[in-house]
Amino acid sequence: MTTLEGLLDVERLEVDLFRGASPPTRLQHIFGGQVAGQALVATSRTVDPAYAVHSLHGYFLRAGQPEVPVVYRVERIRDGRSFVTRRVTGIQHGKAIFMLSASFQVHEEGLEHQEPMPVVPPPEDLVEVHPTRAAMVELHRLEWPGWDLRDVLPPDGEGPDRPARQQLWMRYREGLPDDPVLHVCALAYASDLRLLGASLVPHPGAAVQTASLDHAMWFQRPFRADDWLLYDQTSPSAVGARGLTQGRIFDRAGNLVAAVMQEVLIRPLR
Amino acid sequence: MTTLEGLLDVERLEVDLFRGASPPTRLQHIFGGQVAGQALVATSRTVDPAYAVHSLHGYFLRAGQPEVPVVYRVERIRDGRSFVTRRVTGIQHGKAIFMLSASFQVHEEGLEHQEPMPVVPPPEDLVEVHPTRAAMVELHRLEWPGWDLRDVLPPDGEGPDRPARQQLWMRYREGLPDDPVLHVCALAYASDLRLLGASLVPHPGAAVQTASLDHAMWFQRPFRADDWLLYDQTSPSAVGARGLTQGRIFDRAGNLVAAVMQEVLIRPLR
Repeated sequence: MTTLEGLLDVERLEVDLFRGASPPTRLQHIFGGQVAGQALVATSRTVDPAYAVHSLHGYFLRAGQPEVPVVYRVERIRDGRSFVTRRVTGIQHGKAIFMLSASFQVHEEGLEHQEPMPVVPPPEDLVEVHPTRAAMVELHRLEWPGWDLRDVLPPDGEGPDRPARQQLWMRYREGLPDDPVLHVCALAYASDLRLLGASLVPHPGAAVQTASLDHAMWFQRPFRADDWLLYDQTSPSAVGARGLTQGRIFDRAGNLVAAVMQEVLIRPLR
Repeated sequence: MTTLEGLLDVERLEVDLFRGASPPTRLQHIFGGQVAGQALVATSRTVDPAYAVHSLHGYFLRAGQPEVPVVYRVERIRDGRSFVTRRVTGIQHGKAIFMLSASFQVHEEGLEHQEPMPVVPPPEDLVEVHPTRAAMVELHRLEWPGWDLRDVLPPDGEGPDRPARQQLWMRYREGLPDDPVLHVCALAYASDLRLLGASLVPHPGAAVQTASLDHAMWFQRPFRADDWLLYDQTSPSAVGARGLTQGRIFDRAGNLVAAVMQEVLIRPLR
């Protein structure tokens, strides 16, 4: 249960109906990446393994309560020859806390290109979490002990004149089985880590209430979540107590493996 | 019916049930932006006008038939104090051709930042569509006569060594009423124009079957669709017969008004 594999291994209650629990946590609400990851596992288990997920679009609707399991109800929207579409709703106390749509594709060859990976130091040259971020280090060690995250940009690089960007290497510490669905769902889980922070880089010291509002991912190339991945996080815009954030995820060889978009609530505390 | 206002003015059949028709077209299938725009109008009409749409996430499921109206069925997912969430399904012949989720927010003040607008020539210095794109000019004049689109990058800038980027100014020619919902839905319509092309910039001459797969937008600041908007289109990645495309939309003053992400099918013809 405390391993990532255990957390993502949602229980099958019936055809298209699954249930996921939360590990012990000090967080007030369920970590959004956990709900997204479990929802994607549930969805994937209703799809022929010949089809691989290539995109997902989710909305966080209500704060999840860690002490209550989440039931995931999957709807089979379309089973096409090339593409399969699913929708899943995460439910607590009879109310939707999360909804996600995902599309799966049978393997095809096609045109290829990608943005280059930014030039950054390798993870071995970086400390695990920058020491000036003591609170984050503590939270991180308690909540996500399985993940090794290494900040590329030092926090003293923040400020109103800085572009809204931060970068980190991340890797699940323990080796994971080869099942590609597990690696994809693990990345859906981890893609919600730190992303919100990119929207606060131009606003150091801002006291804000935070939450993830939505989450979209596009999976581009195969990868392993137990090998180092560079998470390049930017924030193109913020307005109306919302920050728009964007992620590009690269493997060590420089392959762009996934892209992420998320809008987050960054509401000033009054 | 041939004006944008007429096209977007979906007929209300019942509470949460709407119907939209297509104008005469030479396209084989309904233009995706039309379905997205009509779906967003339908959705908006079920939401208190104090709440403004700030994001949408849609999937194109089946090709729409222009000779048949599309029925839009809206589900009221959540009515919160700060946020309202809706889901809408576009239906033809009993089957879902499109599904969209959208989130609306009551006005809030908050932290602000944004990416700067790229430096480009003003629309007055550009020709309407670059003359070497004769086929596109003709299609454009027939299908979207109401929209004035001006290419910033000349087509000779394409090729494998070029970044996957293209830029255009766009504007609805006729003045539109002040209703902000209309301008937002008009931009949802127009945001599907040309975006796919960004994924083909590094692959000049490629013969491909094309379609929009999904469509996500984040609305950041107020704007008018009948005033010039710069549509900066890039393609971060392409793989597996899919192109990932990204748009940033700015007004003339340089305000980032919206961000767009879309994955498109670019399947090589054999």
